Amino acid sequence: MSLALIIPDRKLDDLQQRLTQALPDTRIEIWPDISSADEVEFAVVWKQPSGSLAQLPNLKAIQCFGAGVDAILADPTLPALPIARIVDNSLTDTMVRYLDSVLNHYRLRLDQFSSQQRQQLWKPKSPRQLSSICILGLGELGGAAAQHFSAAGYHVSGWTRTAKQLAGVTCYSGQAELAQAVADADVVICLLPLTAETDDLLDKMFFEQVKTGTIFINVARGAIVDDAALLAALDSGQVQAACLDVFRQEPLPAGHPFWLHPAILITPHVSAVTNVSTVVQQIAENYRRSQRGEALLNPVDLSRGY
Amino acid sequence: MSLALIIPDRKLDDLQQRLTQALPDTRIEIWPDISSADEVEFAVVWKQPSGSLAQLPNLKAIQCFGAGVDAILADPTLPALPIARIVDNSLTDTMVRYLDSVLNHYRLRLDQFSSQQRQQLWKPKSPRQLSSICILGLGELGGAAAQHFSAAGYHVSGWTRTAKQLAGVTCYSGQAELAQAVADADVVICLLPLTAETDDLLDKMFFEQVKTGTIFINVARGAIVDDAALLAALDSGQVQAACLDVFRQEPLPAGHPFWLHPAILITPHVSAVTNVSTVVQQIAENYRRSQRGEALLNPVDLSRGY
Ligand SMILES: NC(=O)c1ccc[n+]([C@@H]2O[C@H](COP(=O)([O-])OP(=O)(O)OC[C@H]3O[C@@H](n4cnc5c(N)ncnc54)[C@H](OP(=O)(O)O)[C@@H]3O)[C@@H](O)[C@H]2O)c1
Ligand SMILES: NC(=O)c1ccc[n+]([C@@H]2O[C@H](COP(=O)([O-])OP(=O)(O)OC[C@H]3O[C@@H](n4cnc5c(N)ncnc54)[C@H](OP(=O)(O)O)[C@@H]3O)[C@@H](O)[C@H]2O)c1
Repeated sequence: MSLALIIPDRKLDDLQQRLTQALPDTRIEIWPDISSADEVEFAVVWKQPSGSLAQLPNLKAIQCFGAGVDAILADPTLPALPIARIVDNSLTDTMVRYLDSVLNHYRLRLDQFSSQQRQQLWKPKSPRQLSSICILGLGELGGAAAQHFSAAGYHVSGWTRTAKQLAGVTCYSGQAELAQAVADADVVICLLPLTAETDDLLDKMFFEQVKTGTIFINVARGAIVDDAALLAALDSGQVQAACLDVFRQEPLPAGHPFWLHPAILITPHVSAVTNVSTVVQQIAENYRRSQRGEALLNPVDLSRGY
Repeated sequence: MSLALIIPDRKLDDLQQRLTQALPDTRIEIWPDISSADEVEFAVVWKQPSGSLAQLPNLKAIQCFGAGVDAILADPTLPALPIARIVDNSLTDTMVRYLDSVLNHYRLRLDQFSSQQRQQLWKPKSPRQLSSICILGLGELGGAAAQHFSAAGYHVSGWTRTAKQLAGVTCYSGQAELAQAVADADVVICLLPLTAETDDLLDKMFFEQVKTGTIFINVARGAIVDDAALLAALDSGQVQAACLDVFRQEPLPAGHPFWLHPAILITPHVSAVTNVSTVVQQIAENYRRSQRGEALLNPVDLSRGY
């Protein structure tokens, strides 16, 4: 019986050690050094190589090591097994704090002052009046962000797939209400999962529907946004500025027009990184549940894709 | 009887109109268009030309239009009259919010990510661990900032001229305790007034006393800092980054080494600008008090220089 960590390009000593402590009777192995593929019954996975899970004949369940499972589901050889994802207060707080910091960066015009600094230009200006925020996706992260900004005094709207009610948030749902959800927002934040429905969802038409001069923040997945449509909206001024933490291809390739665009702030997928110490217990618990044949914590609904 | 606004290079229609409403029986004049110098009994002043106040023989009191009176006191022809300054919750909140935003800008490494963006470099890194903050000056602004950061969970130390006690803040006072006050601070914020004692106070020796790699924020007055000492501390890495809102000469002259220094973020004196609508009542009240020969609100102690 063993648990495999299939998380390429990441140091896994800490995770391995903590899981060993939490599950002393289980061998914690790091892919690709798996002593016996037959014995692996549980896999903790992030951006697994296609086919790696299919090679484990006795796998019972898959634990995504992050909140978004799009990369797992993209594997055409994915075995039909229960999948869980991370839901973690510490992850949620980190995301909300990232968003709050970025919003205040724009409110204070640190983007404009930095660019004026490089031109040695002194142009005092009062803060941007950012009073309304639309959050696309009101799940674990979007819901928490919406409540944070609502409590901080912003007008907050939100958009989901199924109709929702959330105190202090004007809720919209379904494709037909997307335009209304963003119409008045000074800031639009994307916190949707990447699914067949949301792939390229934020396209030319979407950017025509936002309030002129809006600020766009994408902390979900790059492929939800049509890159060319965003660039066109930035160039026309329809979108005033964009902060992007996620990209269609990561690392963002050298030469991509996002890199040097004056209205884009790039952060290298850092908005909410899974914290080993806070998630190890839920992973261990899911391992135990899978051993007992019980339903997993924080399960993914494969029919919805998130 | 009239009230003169001596505030060069600023549109004063709004202030004039609101003061006229608050003091309907008083003529509100805008320097240099003063119909009769003899009649001016009260002046609202910001960076007045030297000599302008001395030309008003019947002046009874001077109201500074901001929180810091250093520019008023620098006038060698200043008449010996009571001076009041602005103390305003809205101004204080604006300053605290500026500081919080700047701190989070650094916490999230937006400075580093922006500079990496210009080099098309993808280097994910977790937030800076900024856990302790020292605030130089615990007056209206510094005291509020200290309490804000303490409530937000930071270790906060503060430094003042006279000994002080403030809940949640480790207080130091006097030149002899300055080194201790800053020794462990990941971030040092200057909120001192500019006086004979604080002029060039933050010099080579001071920057040797801060924690190596500290982040320095100056929102008080430029002349409190020895520019060359700060530049040397940035170049050696003793100070990791500096955010400067105030400068010895404003606008910061073209060619000044601060402009293009990679570790300096410049904002053009915007951290807390006096808000006409929230201060008009205290100005009107001070006008009435001066007419009745009463002590002013928010008086400046001329012997201390602040
Ligand atoms: N940048 C980072 O570091 C980072 C870190 C963590 C997560 N993320 C990304 O953030 C995403 C959101 O995470 P989460 O935990 O908040 O997800 P979640 O709890 O699954 O919530 C997803 C939300 O999106 C809505 N949604 C899904 N499909 C939709 C559609 N077609 N139209 C409209 N709304 C739709 C859902 O609507 P319903 O409420 O109707 O189901 C739900 O409100 C993740 O999928 C991940 O990609 C990024
Ligand atoms: N950048 C901007 O937009 C902006 C806006 C507003 C104000 N400011 C600046 O901020 C400064 C502070 O404002 P404030 O309203 O907080 O002033 P304040 O209420 O007068 O407080 C000044 C603080 O500095 C301390 N201090 C004065 N001289 C000192 C010395 N020699 N050594 C140690 N501590 C000393 C005082 O100590 P005690 O408590 O012992 O008296 C007091 O705690 C203003 O003077 C102004 O220059 C800048």
